[in-house]
Amino acid sequence: MTTAGQVIRCRAAVAWEAGKPLVIEEVEVAPPQANEVRLKILYTSLCHTDVYFWEAKGQSPLFPRIYGHEAGGIVESVGEGVTDLAPGDHVLPVFTGECKECDHCKSEESNMCSLLRINTDRGVMLNDGQSRFSINGQPIYHFVGTSTFSEYTVVHVGCVAKINPLAPLDKVCVLSCGISTGLGATLNVAKPPKGSTVAVFGLGAVGLAAAEGARIAGASRIIGVDVNPKRFEEAKNFGCTEFVNPMDYDKPVQEVIAEITDGGVDRSIECTGNINAMISAFECVHDGWGVAVLVGVPHKDAVFKTHPMNVLNERTLKGTFFGNYKPRSDLPSVVEKYMNKELELEKFITHQLPFSEINKAFEYMLKGESLRCIIRMDG
Amino acid sequence: MTTAGQVIRCRAAVAWEAGKPLVIEEVEVAPPQANEVRLKILYTSLCHTDVYFWEAKGQSPLFPRIYGHEAGGIVESVGEGVTDLAPGDHVLPVFTGECKECDHCKSEESNMCSLLRINTDRGVMLNDGQSRFSINGQPIYHFVGTSTFSEYTVVHVGCVAKINPLAPLDKVCVLSCGISTGLGATLNVAKPPKGSTVAVFGLGAVGLAAAEGARIAGASRIIGVDVNPKRFEEAKNFGCTEFVNPMDYDKPVQEVIAEITDGGVDRSIECTGNINAMISAFECVHDGWGVAVLVGVPHKDAVFKTHPMNVLNERTLKGTFFGNYKPRSDLPSVVEKYMNKELELEKFITHQLPFSEINKAFEYMLKGESLRCIIRMDG
Ligand SMILES: NC(=O)c1ccc[n+]([C@@H]2O[C@H](COP(=O)([O-])OP(=O)(O)OC[C@H]3O[C@@H](n4cnc5c(N)ncnc54)[C@H](O)[C@@H]3O)[C@@H](O)[C@H]2O)c1
Ligand SMILES: NC(=O)c1ccc[n+]([C@@H]2O[C@H](COP(=O)([O-])OP(=O)(O)OC[C@H]3O[C@@H](n4cnc5c(N)ncnc54)[C@H](O)[C@@H]3O)[C@@H](O)[C@H]2O)c1
Ligand SMILES: [Zn+2]
Ligand SMILES: [Zn+2]
Ligand SMILES: [Zn+2]
Ligand SMILES: [Zn+2]
Repeated sequence: MTTAGQVIRCRAAVAWEAGKPLVIEEVEVAPPQANEVRLKILYTSLCHTDVYFWEAKGQSPLFPRIYGHEAGGIVESVGEGVTDLAPGDHVLPVFTGECKECDHCKSEESNMCSLLRINTDRGVMLNDGQSRFSINGQPIYHFVGTSTFSEYTVVHVGCVAKINPLAPLDKVCVLSCGISTGLGATLNVAKPPKGSTVAVFGLGAVGLAAAEGARIAGASRIIGVDVNPKRFEEAKNFGCTEFVNPMDYDKPVQEVIAEITDGGVDRSIECTGNINAMISAFECVHDGWGVAVLVGVPHKDAVFKTHPMNVLNERTLKGTFFGNYKPRSDLPSVVEKYMNKELELEKFITHQLPFSEINKAFEYMLKGESLRCIIRMDG
Repeated sequence: MTTAGQVIRCRAAVAWEAGKPLVIEEVEVAPPQANEVRLKILYTSLCHTDVYFWEAKGQSPLFPRIYGHEAGGIVESVGEGVTDLAPGDHVLPVFTGECKECDHCKSEESNMCSLLRINTDRGVMLNDGQSRFSINGQPIYHFVGTSTFSEYTVVHVGCVAKINPLAPLDKVCVLSCGISTGLGATLNVAKPPKGSTVAVFGLGAVGLAAAEGARIAGASRIIGVDVNPKRFEEAKNFGCTEFVNPMDYDKPVQEVIAEITDGGVDRSIECTGNINAMISAFECVHDGWGVAVLVGVPHKDAVFKTHPMNVLNERTLKGTFFGNYKPRSDLPSVVEKYMNKELELEKFITHQLPFSEINKAFEYMLKGESLRCIIRMDG
């Protein structure tokens, strides 16, 4: 019996209020409309961005909502006009899309699709301005177009990357956000030359993926910077060769880094979301050629401040979403990097949980204990 | 009779006090020491940076001093160890040098030589920490290692570009700072792709050279931005296709530019030294791919402020000294661009004066009337 065209009833973890534990509810998931696909999610994981918007400190809160944006699944059915995907395809949903028609999609440099770029304020689908999720007729809002904390979800076709069906979804699901973001920030944006020195601010999954990118690029020194020294031991597995804890010094960490690197690192990648770390990451790169890349999502009222001479002195400041990968065009090849063993994903996966215990994943992240926790949807 | 090894007595324009007219004095110019050359200056011109340090608002003042750093001349004699240059060579002195041995000189990206980069606080030669200029035994300070407002001056060999002796020094002298700076900021740093849109903030000589660079690169629209609308008519000769005066609007000029360019320009180059213009120049570039380049020299206490989301949205911020040209390696080829008629210099030269009337050049610049005023040293 096919479910295509039918409303599906399934389990979803609903956030009813900011900062309160999610509740597993039975939800109704409407069929996909034009240019939409409905996915059966098999595995999802938790990213700091979920936690940040669930805490809703400083952003417009939107509840009830279904979070989740790192996941792997299988296409259940497709809406009108969808030709690129068919039921049974293995896919990664992505929080930012690729319409393939706008200026950004046509640019070689940008992945910030005008139509489908991340929008954390929107809780509905583009096609009709409505949610596809409901409980007894009450709509439940979407999150960044993905809402993967549900056994089934509806996503715009432009936000879905079709991948190698042989790739294990319980591993490659982490490529759907954090790991690709960090890896791409280094490989696509910072582009450290072989033998160069790299500083990585924030040693969560995103920062460790950035470090991994630096290792793959052949950096000679990879300096991990974190205020949580518990991260240092683990970070050695991701290529970090030395560590700096800003809390250990009376002076700004950019000065500490300049001292140990003869004037600054060649590249830095900021993966914290903390504005002071962003400023330090910029100011710690070497004048003349240093490049700093911001990745962390800042607070709404954060202000980036620096003396303009730091710019004049031939430093470069850049930012990136999703490591500059275009989700549909580029993500399949990142999955292939894993398949070819160029990229190891297992070491990012520190925890596993059944869906029924999803709230524990929030605790692990809030305590800084986990990198990525894989949540099995059938559990 | 040779002057080599002898003290030369000649005329120089001495600044005795901040903001007071220069006084033509007879000065003594000591012979060049190790790695120095003594130049006979034939033509010099005035750049905003001279005026800025002569006004000494907000920098450590150093007087009496001989300003001047845009010039063309001939090598009179060389000090010990100088093998690259010989008496009679035609040269351009440059405010920033190239030792050819430090990390920066060896980097393909940087021109900020560790040994010879611009130092506006130092008024003496590196070799012995002394000045080569004196009046009755009283030392007169150097300015940025060039001090070209003198018939003879002593310069480190690393700050001297040897050029084609057929090049007319009364024209190519302007390549020794401002014009190369603006041109290189566009061609070497902003690198606008053919057909792209470019905004230039500040339509002085540096900004017009940046616009000229955009024209050479094949930009489709070049938007000139200046608070002085008198600059607009002239700017048409430098490729500017349209103009925005920030004073004509109630909203920030970056918003005005975003509106007329469907989201922002592809490249912007800031050539004002004004911190607000720097911020606007950054924020007016298109997200996804826009690149902003800062060129203007900011006040000591200026702070560059922007919301980090402007960076995250895949904008790039860069800065440059001397348009990223390495003076000795690259300047000869910029002179050739003029010789081949790829680059027109005549249109930058709006005024000419004999050395005896050098103070008029300051008036022209302060009133915003001149682009470049060529000062004939024999006049
Ligand atoms: N730009 C994008 O496309 C994108 C995508 C995914 C995640 N993110 C952002 O990247 C950041 C990292 O995500 P994550 O999942 O790795 O989070 P995480 O919480 O696992 O890791 C962040 C790390 O930064 C450290 N940190 C915090 N403040 C610091 C400071 N001032 N100096 C040094 N270290 C500091 C923390 O101790 C922690 O170890 C978050 O801001 C997240 O929202 C951005
Ligand atoms: N980075 C370098 O290597 C380098 C080299 C030479 C000059 N400079 C600097 O470049 C700048 C320009 O030099 P110049 O000789 O062309 O000076 P200039 O005075 O001839 O031109 C500056 C122009 O900027 C305009 N301006 C001022 N504030 C503005 C604002 N807020 N918005 C828009 N326009 C504004 C002025 O009206 C003027 O037309 C100066 O700051 C100078 O010190 C830097
Ligand atoms: Zn994420
Ligand atoms: Zn698009
Ligand atoms: Zn100058
Ligand atoms: Zn050097």
